[in-house]
Amino acid sequence: MSEKKVAVIMGSDSDLPTVKKALEELKSYGVEYECHIMSAHRTPATAAEFSATAKDNGFGVIICAAGMAAHLAGVVAAYTTLPVIGIPCSSKNFDGLDALLATVQMPSGIPVATVAVDGAKNAAILAVQMLALSDEALAFKLTASKQAMLDQINEKDKKLQDELKSL
Amino acid sequence: MSEKKVAVIMGSDSDLPTVKKALEELKSYGVEYECHIMSAHRTPATAAEFSATAKDNGFGVIICAAGMAAHLAGVVAAYTTLPVIGIPCSSKNFDGLDALLATVQMPSGIPVATVAVDGAKNAAILAVQMLALSDEALAFKLTASKQAMLDQINEKDKKLQDELKSL
Amino acid sequence: MSEKKVAVIMGSDSDLPTVKKALEELKSYGVEYECHIMSAHRTPATAAEFSATAKDNGFGVIICAAGMAAHLAGVVAAYTTLPVIGIPCSSKNFDGLDALLATVQMPSGIPVATVAVDGAKNAAILAVQMLALSDEALAFKLTASKQAMLDQINEKDKKLQDELKSL
Amino acid sequence: MSEKKVAVIMGSDSDLPTVKKALEELKSYGVEYECHIMSAHRTPATAAEFSATAKDNGFGVIICAAGMAAHLAGVVAAYTTLPVIGIPCSSKNFDGLDALLATVQMPSGIPVATVAVDGAKNAAILAVQMLALSDEALAFKLTASKQAMLDQINEKDKKLQDELKSL
Amino acid sequence: MSEKKVAVIMGSDSDLPTVKKALEELKSYGVEYECHIMSAHRTPATAAEFSATAKDNGFGVIICAAGMAAHLAGVVAAYTTLPVIGIPCSSKNFDGLDALLATVQMPSGIPVATVAVDGAKNAAILAVQMLALSDEALAFKLTASKQAMLDQINEKDKKLQDELKSL
Amino acid sequence: MSEKKVAVIMGSDSDLPTVKKALEELKSYGVEYECHIMSAHRTPATAAEFSATAKDNGFGVIICAAGMAAHLAGVVAAYTTLPVIGIPCSSKNFDGLDALLATVQMPSGIPVATVAVDGAKNAAILAVQMLALSDEALAFKLTASKQAMLDQINEKDKKLQDELKSL
Amino acid sequence: MSEKKVAVIMGSDSDLPTVKKALEELKSYGVEYECHIMSAHRTPATAAEFSATAKDNGFGVIICAAGMAAHLAGVVAAYTTLPVIGIPCSSKNFDGLDALLATVQMPSGIPVATVAVDGAKNAAILAVQMLALSDEALAFKLTASKQAMLDQINEKDKKLQDELKSL
Amino acid sequence: MSEKKVAVIMGSDSDLPTVKKALEELKSYGVEYECHIMSAHRTPATAAEFSATAKDNGFGVIICAAGMAAHLAGVVAAYTTLPVIGIPCSSKNFDGLDALLATVQMPSGIPVATVAVDGAKNAAILAVQMLALSDEALAFKLTASKQAMLDQINEKDKKLQDELKSL
Repeated sequence: MSEKKVAVIMGSDSDLPTVKKALEELKSYGVEYECHIMSAHRTPATAAEFSATAKDNGFGVIICAAGMAAHLAGVVAAYTTLPVIGIPCSSKNFDGLDALLATVQMPSGIPVATVAVDGAKNAAILAVQMLALSDEALAFKLTASKQAMLDQINEKDKKLQDELKSL
Repeated sequence: MSEKKVAVIMGSDSDLPTVKKALEELKSYGVEYECHIMSAHRTPATAAEFSATAKDNGFGVIICAAGMAAHLAGVVAAYTTLPVIGIPCSSKNFDGLDALLATVQMPSGIPVATVAVDGAKNAAILAVQMLALSDEALAFKLTASKQAMLDQINEKDKKLQDELKSL
Repeated sequence: MSEKKVAVIMGSDSDLPTVKKALEELKSYGVEYECHIMSAHRTPATAAEFSATAKDNGFGVIICAAGMAAHLAGVVAAYTTLPVIGIPCSSKNFDGLDALLATVQMPSGIPVATVAVDGAKNAAILAVQMLALSDEALAFKLTASKQAMLDQINEKDKKLQDELKSL
Repeated sequence: MSEKKVAVIMGSDSDLPTVKKALEELKSYGVEYECHIMSAHRTPATAAEFSATAKDNGFGVIICAAGMAAHLAGVVAAYTTLPVIGIPCSSKNFDGLDALLATVQMPSGIPVATVAVDGAKNAAILAVQMLALSDEALAFKLTASKQAMLDQINEKDKKLQDELKSL
Repeated sequence: MSEKKVAVIMGSDSDLPTVKKALEELKSYGVEYECHIMSAHRTPATAAEFSATAKDNGFGVIICAAGMAAHLAGVVAAYTTLPVIGIPCSSKNFDGLDALLATVQMPSGIPVATVAVDGAKNAAILAVQMLALSDEALAFKLTASKQAMLDQINEKDKKLQDELKSL
Repeated sequence: MSEKKVAVIMGSDSDLPTVKKALEELKSYGVEYECHIMSAHRTPATAAEFSATAKDNGFGVIICAAGMAAHLAGVVAAYTTLPVIGIPCSSKNFDGLDALLATVQMPSGIPVATVAVDGAKNAAILAVQMLALSDEALAFKLTASKQAMLDQINEKDKKLQDELKSL
Repeated sequence: MSEKKVAVIMGSDSDLPTVKKALEELKSYGVEYECHIMSAHRTPATAAEFSATAKDNGFGVIICAAGMAAHLAGVVAAYTTLPVIGIPCSSKNFDGLDALLATVQMPSGIPVATVAVDGAKNAAILAVQMLALSDEALAFKLTASKQAMLDQINEKDKKLQDELKSL
Repeated sequence: MSEKKVAVIMGSDSDLPTVKKALEELKSYGVEYECHIMSAHRTPATAAEFSATAKDNGFGVIICAAGMAAHLAGVVAAYTTLPVIGIPCSSKNFDGLDALLATVQMPSGIPVATVAVDGAKNAAILAVQMLALSDEALAFKLTASKQAMLDQINEKDKKLQDELKSL
C-alpha cells in the first residue's frame, strides 16, 4: 500500500456531504487520509501552514473542496509543490460555475487539477491514480475497479433488455 | 488631506495598464498611495504579510487588481479588517467573467467591494469616498468632481446639437 | 462608537428576508441604521432625494439591495458622493446574474461597491469597515469578530475529527 | 405626418455611432426627433426632468441607448408613461450581455421595450410602428419599407444564382 | 377608450399561467383583447394569417408569449407592421435565457419589443402605453396607476418602520 | 448517385462565406443542391412556400444557416416533414450562442438537427449521411472520406515527429 | 415499414426516463429499435464496437443520450458513417448546457445532429424523418402526425375561448 | 530523473502553438515525453490503443489538448488508469467554454484533471508534480522553480517602484 497520505480539506462544513464521497472512495482503496475544515478566507494562516508542511508531514496529494469564490485550492497550491486537486462545490446560486472558474482558471505556474462541479468521487480516484504511479498494488486495484464499473454497466444493460420487453 | 494611504496591488505586471488609471485618479485627489506587484499564488507570504500589517503601516484601503481565478482581493481580505476593493481584470478568454465571479462571490464574513471588470478608475473613486468619510476636504473634492463630470456631459450634449444639424 | 448612520434600502419588500441579515449584522456592531423600501423605478424621486440629502442627514454609507435589472444602487450613487454598497438579489430566474451585472458594471465615475449575490451580511461588514476607518472602537470589534470566526472554524474542525472516527 | 416627436437619448457620446443608425431610420420615415446625451448616473436630474416633461413637450416615444449596467432606459421609464425603447449597447467586455439584462429585466410595473444588442435601427422602426398606430400615412410607409426589404432579398437571391454557377 | 384591440397569443397552453397576468392587466385598463394559442412551429399558417390580417381586423398591438427557441414573436412580426411585444417564457432548463435571446436578437428590419423573462404584466402595460399615444383617457389611467404604485411602496415603507422597531 | 437534392438556404447574404463550405462539401460528394437566400423574417412567405413544396420538388434534406435570433430552420421545419439541419451562425455579439439556442431548443414535435456554430461542412456531411441511407454508392464515399481523414491525421503526426526533433 | 432499425443508446441508466419518450415515439411510428446502456467512458470498447458494426447489423440511425461532458454521441459518430443524433441530458448542475456544448460543438468531419436538451421525442421524430427519405409509408405517417398536432392546437385554442369567457 | 515518460497528445495540429508551451516546460524539468496528434473523432482507434497500452509503454501521465466538444481527454481516460490531464483549448467561438465543460464535467468513475483554458504550461507542471511524488530530484526542481517565480515577481515589483517615481 502507498505510504503517502491524502489530505482532504474543505472550506466550510456545509461541503461535508460532498466531501464524504471522496473519503469513502479513498477508504475503499485503502489509502490513508486526513480530513480538515480550513478556510482560505477565515483561517488563512492555518491553510497556509498546513500546505507548506504537507509534504514533510507525509502527504502526497491535497484535495480541496470549496464553493462560490473558491480560493482554497489556489491558496493551498501557492504553498506546496504537491499536486493539488480542486473540487468546485455548487452553492445556492450559479450551480457552481463561480466555483469552477475560480478553481480551474489558475495563472501560469500554479496548477490546480480540477474535477467536475461536486465531483468528489473523481477527485479521490484522481488522487489514487497519482499515488499508484509508484504503487503497483494500488494500480492493480484501479484496474479492478475499472473492470467492475464495466461489468456493472453490462449488468444494467441486460436488465434493461428485460424491462423493455414490457414497454 | 487624508492621512491614510491607499495600497494598490496587482497580481501581475500585465495588469499595470489597467491599474495606472487608478493611480492617476488617486493622484488627482491628492491621496497618497503605494503600488505593488504581489501575487496570491506566486508570492503568497508577501501578500499575507503586507495585508496583515497594512493597517499599522498607515493604509486605510487596499485596492487589488487580478485576472482569471482572481484570488488576490480575497486573500488580502482574509488578513485585514480594512476595506478591500477588488478590480476583476479581463484576460485572454471569458472577458473577465472568471475574475468577476472569483472576486465578488466571497463567502459570508469576508467581503470584497467589487467594481466593474477593468474598472480601475472607479476603484480609486470608491477608495476616496471611503477616506472622505472622515475628511471633509476630500468630500468637497468628490462633489466638485461630480459637478465637473455633469458639466462635461452637458458640454458634449451641446456639441452634439451642432453636429446633428448637419446630419 | 461611529456617529455616522448606515442607510439600508431595498427595491421591494420581497428583498426583506435577505436584507434582514444586513440589519442584524449592523446591530451586532452597534452601528446605527435606517432601513427603507424605495424603488429606483417605482419611487424614483424619493430615492433621488434620499440620496441627495443622505450625507447632510448623518449617513456615512448607503447599502442598496435590488434584484433583476437592479438599478437602485446605481441611481443612489448618481445622487451622492457617499460610498454606496450594492447587494444583487437573486430572483425567480438567472440566479441573480442579471442583478449582479446591473449592479457591478457601473460606468466610469460612479462606483458601486458590489458584494456577492444575496450577500447582505458582507454588505454590512463592508459598511462597518468603512466607518471603522475613523473609529478605532469599531475597528477593534472587527478584529474580535474575525478572531471569533477563526475560532469557530477551528472548533468545527475539531468536531469533524470525532465524526470521522466513526466513518 | 405624425405630430409626435421621438426622443433619442444616449448615456455616453461613445454610443453615437450606434445611435446614428436610429436617427437615419427615423429621418427616412420623416419622423421628427431630438437627440441628446444624458446619463442616468452622471446627469441624473437632467434625465429625470427630461423624462417627466417629455409627454408635455410633444414626445411620443423615448429611445434610450446605453451600455454596461445600462440604467438609462429604466430611469427614463420611471418618470414617464410614454413607451420607452431600450437599446443595450455592447462595450469592451461581455458583448452587451450586461446591458441587455440591465435593460430588459425590468420589475413589474415599469416596462422597457428592449431590442437586440446594438439594434438601433430596429429601435427606430419600433418607434415608428408605435406612432403609426394613429397615423395611416406612416403605416403605409412601413408597409412599403417591408416590401422593399423583401424585394431586396429576392434581388440578392437572384444574384446568388449567377454567382453559384461559377462555383 | 381606445378602439384598437390587443392580441395576446401564446405558443403553448403551458404558457397560460404567465399570459393570464397580461390579460388581467389589460382588463384593468379596459382595453379590449383577444387571446389565442397559436404556434410558430405547429400551426405556422394560422399564425401567419392571423398576423397578416391583424391590422385590418382591428388590432393595434400583438403580444406573443413563447418559451425555448421562442420564434412566435419573430414570425408574427414578419407578417405585420403593427408593433409586436415578445414575452420570453422560462421553461424546464436555462431559466428562459434561450427564449430571451430567441426573442430579442431580431435581425435589422423586423423589431420585437422584448420584456423581461415571464414579464407578462409589463407586456400588457407596454401595449397600453402604445395605445395611449392616441387615447388621452388611457394615458390618464397610466398616470393614475403609476401614482398608485408609488403610494403602495410608500405604504409598505411605513409598515416596515413599525416592523423594524421589534427587530 | 442519390436522386434527392439538398436545399441550402441562408437568412442573409452575410452568411454566404460560412455556407460556401457546405456547398463545396456537397459538391465533393456529387450530391445535387440548390442554394437560396430566404429570410424567416424578411421573406417569410417565400420560405414557407419553399418548405411546403420542397419534398414534391425533389429535395430530401434542407440545410438552414442563420444568425442571431435564428428562426429560419424552425420556420422551415414547421412547413415540411423532411429532415431539417440548422447551422447557427456567429455574428457580431455572443459568438453564436443566441443562434445556437434559437436553433436547437425546438419544442416537442418539430425537430431541427443542429450542428456546431458555423459548422457548415458538418451540416453537409450530415445531409449526405441521411441520403446515403438509401444510396450505397454515397455510403461508400462516406467511408472513403472517413479513411482519408484518418490518413491525413496520421500524416500530420508523422510530420510532427520530425518537427519535434528540432525543438 | 422501413427495414432499417434505430439504435437508442444512453450513457447511464439515469437517462432512461428521458430516453423512454424516444422509444414511445419510435413505437408509435412502427419503427423497429434496439435500446442499450453503453458508456463512452465506462464501456468504451463496447460503444466502439457497436458503432463500427451498426450499419452491417441493420441499423440506419443511432440516437445517443448523455449528460455532463456528453461524449457518447461523438464517440459513436467517430466509428460510423450512419447519421448520429445526440440528446444532451440535463443533470444536477448547469441545466444541460455542458451536455449541449459537448454534443453539438463537434469538429469538422464528424457531425452529430443535436436536438434540444432532454429533447428525446424530437430525436425520435428526426430519426423517423431520415428513414422516411426512402419509405413513403413512413413519410405519410409523419404528415398525418403533423396534421394531428395542428388539430390539437386548434382544439386547445377553442377550449381556451370558453375558458376566457369566465375570466 | 523520473523514468516514466509523459505523453502529450492533441486533437488537431492547430493546437500545436498551445501545446508547445507544455513541451518546453517538460523539457526544462528534464522529463522525457512523446507528443502526438490523435483525434478522439478522426482517429479513435489509434487514441484508444495508445491509451490502453500507455502504462505498459512506460508512460506515467497523459496530457490531452483539445478544443470545442473536447472529448480527447475523456476518451483517453476511458482506456487507462493513468492520471489524465486535460487542456481545454479555445477556438473561434465561446473562448474555450465549450472545451472546458466538455473536459471537466466527467461522470463519476473517470476523472480528468483539468487545467485552465489554454493552460498548457500548468498541465506540464501538474504532470511533473505527479511524477515527483516518487522522484525527489524532480521535487527539488519544483521547489527551485517556485522560488525562481517568487524572485521574479519581487524583481518586477522593485522595477515598478522606479517606474512609479516618474508617473
